[in-house]
Amino acid sequence: MQWSVYLSGEIHTDWREQIIEGAKSLNLPVEFTSAVTDHDTSDAAGDVLGAETDNYWRDSKSARVNQIRTKTLIEAADLVVVRFGDKYKQWNAAFDAGYCAALNIPYITLHEPDIIHPLKEVDGSAMAWAQTPAQVVEILKYVTGS
Amino acid sequence: MQWSVYLSGEIHTDWREQIIEGAKSLNLPVEFTSAVTDHDTSDAAGDVLGAETDNYWRDSKSARVNQIRTKTLIEAADLVVVRFGDKYKQWNAAFDAGYCAALNIPYITLHEPDIIHPLKEVDGSAMAWAQTPAQVVEILKYVTGS
Amino acid sequence: MQWSVYLSGEIHTDWREQIIEGAKSLNLPVEFTSAVTDHDTSDAAGDVLGAETDNYWRDSKSARVNQIRTKTLIEAADLVVVRFGDKYKQWNAAFDAGYCAALNIPYITLHEPDIIHPLKEVDGSAMAWAQTPAQVVEILKYVTGS
Amino acid sequence: MQWSVYLSGEIHTDWREQIIEGAKSLNLPVEFTSAVTDHDTSDAAGDVLGAETDNYWRDSKSARVNQIRTKTLIEAADLVVVRFGDKYKQWNAAFDAGYCAALNIPYITLHEPDIIHPLKEVDGSAMAWAQTPAQVVEILKYVTGS
Amino acid sequence: MQWSVYLSGEIHTDWREQIIEGAKSLNLPVEFTSAVTDHDTSDAAGDVLGAETDNYWRDSKSARVNQIRTKTLIEAADLVVVRFGDKYKQWNAAFDAGYCAALNIPYITLHEPDIIHPLKEVDGSAMAWAQTPAQVVEILKYVTGS
Amino acid sequence: MQWSVYLSGEIHTDWREQIIEGAKSLNLPVEFTSAVTDHDTSDAAGDVLGAETDNYWRDSKSARVNQIRTKTLIEAADLVVVRFGDKYKQWNAAFDAGYCAALNIPYITLHEPDIIHPLKEVDGSAMAWAQTPAQVVEILKYVTGS
Amino acid sequence: MQWSVYLSGEIHTDWREQIIEGAKSLNLPVEFTSAVTDHDTSDAAGDVLGAETDNYWRDSKSARVNQIRTKTLIEAADLVVVRFGDKYKQWNAAFDAGYCAALNIPYITLHEPDIIHPLKEVDGSAMAWAQTPAQVVEILKYVTGS
Amino acid sequence: MQWSVYLSGEIHTDWREQIIEGAKSLNLPVEFTSAVTDHDTSDAAGDVLGAETDNYWRDSKSARVNQIRTKTLIEAADLVVVRFGDKYKQWNAAFDAGYCAALNIPYITLHEPDIIHPLKEVDGSAMAWAQTPAQVVEILKYVTGS
Repeated sequence: MQWSVYLSGEIHTDWREQIIEGAKSLNLPVEFTSAVTDHDTSDAAGDVLGAETDNYWRDSKSARVNQIRTKTLIEAADLVVVRFGDKYKQWNAAFDAGYCAALNIPYITLHEPDIIHPLKEVDGSAMAWAQTPAQVVEILKYVTGS
Repeated sequence: MQWSVYLSGEIHTDWREQIIEGAKSLNLPVEFTSAVTDHDTSDAAGDVLGAETDNYWRDSKSARVNQIRTKTLIEAADLVVVRFGDKYKQWNAAFDAGYCAALNIPYITLHEPDIIHPLKEVDGSAMAWAQTPAQVVEILKYVTGS
Repeated sequence: MQWSVYLSGEIHTDWREQIIEGAKSLNLPVEFTSAVTDHDTSDAAGDVLGAETDNYWRDSKSARVNQIRTKTLIEAADLVVVRFGDKYKQWNAAFDAGYCAALNIPYITLHEPDIIHPLKEVDGSAMAWAQTPAQVVEILKYVTGS
Repeated sequence: MQWSVYLSGEIHTDWREQIIEGAKSLNLPVEFTSAVTDHDTSDAAGDVLGAETDNYWRDSKSARVNQIRTKTLIEAADLVVVRFGDKYKQWNAAFDAGYCAALNIPYITLHEPDIIHPLKEVDGSAMAWAQTPAQVVEILKYVTGS
Repeated sequence: MQWSVYLSGEIHTDWREQIIEGAKSLNLPVEFTSAVTDHDTSDAAGDVLGAETDNYWRDSKSARVNQIRTKTLIEAADLVVVRFGDKYKQWNAAFDAGYCAALNIPYITLHEPDIIHPLKEVDGSAMAWAQTPAQVVEILKYVTGS
Repeated sequence: MQWSVYLSGEIHTDWREQIIEGAKSLNLPVEFTSAVTDHDTSDAAGDVLGAETDNYWRDSKSARVNQIRTKTLIEAADLVVVRFGDKYKQWNAAFDAGYCAALNIPYITLHEPDIIHPLKEVDGSAMAWAQTPAQVVEILKYVTGS
Repeated sequence: MQWSVYLSGEIHTDWREQIIEGAKSLNLPVEFTSAVTDHDTSDAAGDVLGAETDNYWRDSKSARVNQIRTKTLIEAADLVVVRFGDKYKQWNAAFDAGYCAALNIPYITLHEPDIIHPLKEVDGSAMAWAQTPAQVVEILKYVTGS
Repeated sequence: MQWSVYLSGEIHTDWREQIIEGAKSLNLPVEFTSAVTDHDTSDAAGDVLGAETDNYWRDSKSARVNQIRTKTLIEAADLVVVRFGDKYKQWNAAFDAGYCAALNIPYITLHEPDIIHPLKEVDGSAMAWAQTPAQVVEILKYVTGS
């Protein structure tokens, strides 16, 4: 079986690449997907439909265009990894976790120990908490093993 | 019809009371529910089941006990109001929004304009964005009118 | 059993009143619901959340506020009556019919014979086609009979 | 991932061809589907099952045969594009939009600005509103990008 | 808890009355529902919507009007009793059983031993097979006991 | 798209072969499935699990083994054809139709006009009624056309 | 809100009474339900439908009659408490836990520490693990508090 | 059609190998899946995420990592075989059976006659009870036959 793993959250470090490279080096039967991770491109996703003068509507329009992609990929995933970094609000990552929890799509969180407390509801519904991309790769190796 | 409205998010200001009082003064057919909103009580929700030495497990245990309550009340709600304040991570609020979005439970966000950008995915799936409790009461009055 | 019947569509004639009066005179165990049917009020449903300069966003905002009400009431309905008149586009009525069809909520259409052809997909998924409010009342009497 | 995109609505202009050609020229990983778009063929879909003297039943029979196809293809779609032109009632297009909204299947509308107001409920549940087929192709390019 | 029990199938003997009387004499917390059981009335359910010259359409129209009632009541039932007698095709009873099986609504069959073989698929998905109304009452007494 | 079509019902005439051959000669993109259609083999499906002295349990055991197959294939089908012949009770065919109706799986009935009346509920939820295998092939050609 | 709590598992000690009494003394808004807990009565649940000579079928028949009750009550529950004692196989308790997990119905386990290891999958999907009925009452008090 | 069959339960005898070999020798179109069946490896599944001093949390962590795998494979299965041996508690096997029952995933039990009574609820919802791996292979041959 080919597994589909969606990588959600932080876009400012190379955690996605580390997981993808790790899985590749072990030949794991995993296909990775994610949102568009270039910040400016993602913010401008709706601009092609016409310019907006009001920031709220520009953001809303881009968010919904992005959601066409993310909703489809998350719902097709066998597992979601949700990464929280040490900067920014990252409410979209917590939103994705809640989305998965409601649909019974298993997810793993990936974050440092210093944010355990504010993430307690998100961790509480997760299947596992990893602190490093290498740990995520180990979990993937285990669950996809034949 | 009696409407059930769940109030999610920030616990440090009196926005819940403002909405509840506003609805009451208009005799709206609305029953309000929410999580346990006393911070310390909520953090200690699992302690009755035995002390934990590891903070992660204490948090996880309490989070899951709280979820017995919140999951049931959210799924029974006709509408959820998700409030974001200007402090703390508030990932549980975004988690609730994602949970609602996945289950097609309509929700309204309530927040100041200065956090529009980081909330764009959460707002993008919301039915409305309100800036004041009074606006939420107006919406409740409108949607529950006979 | 108390039946919940949602009345969708045309707001320019008194078909709703005829059905409600007819059911009342027969003491049928039916509670009727519907969208806000005052045109101007409905168009302004979102204005309380702030004025919009762009008509598209004003309409979108009001439409979503209205949907909080309509979605909840339609999903709670045992039966939906969808009325098409001889004026206006009435795409919201056809939208409601499609919504019901997808969720297996039974609906009846109510319209004149001259629009049979453009309504063929909507009629094709309906449980019945009525031409007069009196016929709808007869159907309600039959299906709710003890 | 191969995306499945269903093209719903108007059959009198070449908007389908423009989108399909645009996607093809960009090598997008998209498979397009749609209803039978020849008007007379579609109206006669049920005739093979026996002639009808009553137009209502001829229409109903054909509509249900067509629905075998459209229901299956819409439910298999990752995204639906719903086109409204400037002629005819087009209630079937609005019906498809409502069907998608109920099942959480993302859809985009494609129409001119002059029908924004009557389409406000349909647009309100859409993920995006496009005014030209070229814009739809841009969105497809964005959401399916690897 | 008040139980809702739907009585499906044969309309030519008094098995419904026997079950209802038996439950009543034991004060069981059960509310019984069923289709309209007068044969001629049921066949004419759609006539109020206009006469049909073609028997197929008359039957189809009445069947769909009846289904507004039966579908709602079956889906609201905690338990369905499906009775097969010794006459007629009774395909509607088997249809109801299949409907229940698909939705995980528990049902009991009620029939003589001589039709065990043709009913094997229907019995195979049933929770129990009873041969007399008195046995059904016993089962109701048992499952609804406090 | 490859379509999956399940052929349910009568096993005493060659209607399945006629449809399969017809589809094959037109190169339709259809894969056909069905229950085990050899009567004695089907009745003995559970015998390998141990002999039964009581006919009811032998039938029940075989029915449930058969259901492993039929349930899986019906739920995987895009369309089901349900055939009623002029002999036997055929309650399993009506059961399959009810099962499809509940799950919103489209089905077509195939039967002679003389049993329209007892099949009215089954026909009432069908997408079409065909009288000959050749008509079914025509419908398949139409709905699967590219 | 009135909560419905289903008490599943061990029938040889008075843990049910302790929880019910504890909740009563605190006036908690909870209604308790459970299977028939008299062992012999439960084993004989199907006997009224006719004697069986084969133990497997006697057990199967009674199990399915019991399931009419348990399935309905479990699905109506807001929370399930699953008790494992120190005797017997208690596979029905683990079965109920799996049933709840699949349907996203929250459940709590109640057992001594010495069976932690064999219960790890059951505990892993539980919302909490309690060791005494008094702890369960505390949790009920917390989650149902207004 | 390729069938997916999940093998759940006992890990101390070679029943899995017997079924897999049997299916292979008959060229059955079946792909088999299962949990990680090495006891020590399974117990240590979560250790890579950090050591635990408390056995309860070590077990819980490993159980949830294992569930990422088992939940995905069970939900993808067309049929589940649940094996109960003569040792250990095996609550995870009963849990899997309950999970399948709730989701309408057909399952077969495989066990000796001496544990019929404690397994009556698990058997009661099963599609069949087999006593030997060879019988399971026979059933697979039958249900997957073309």
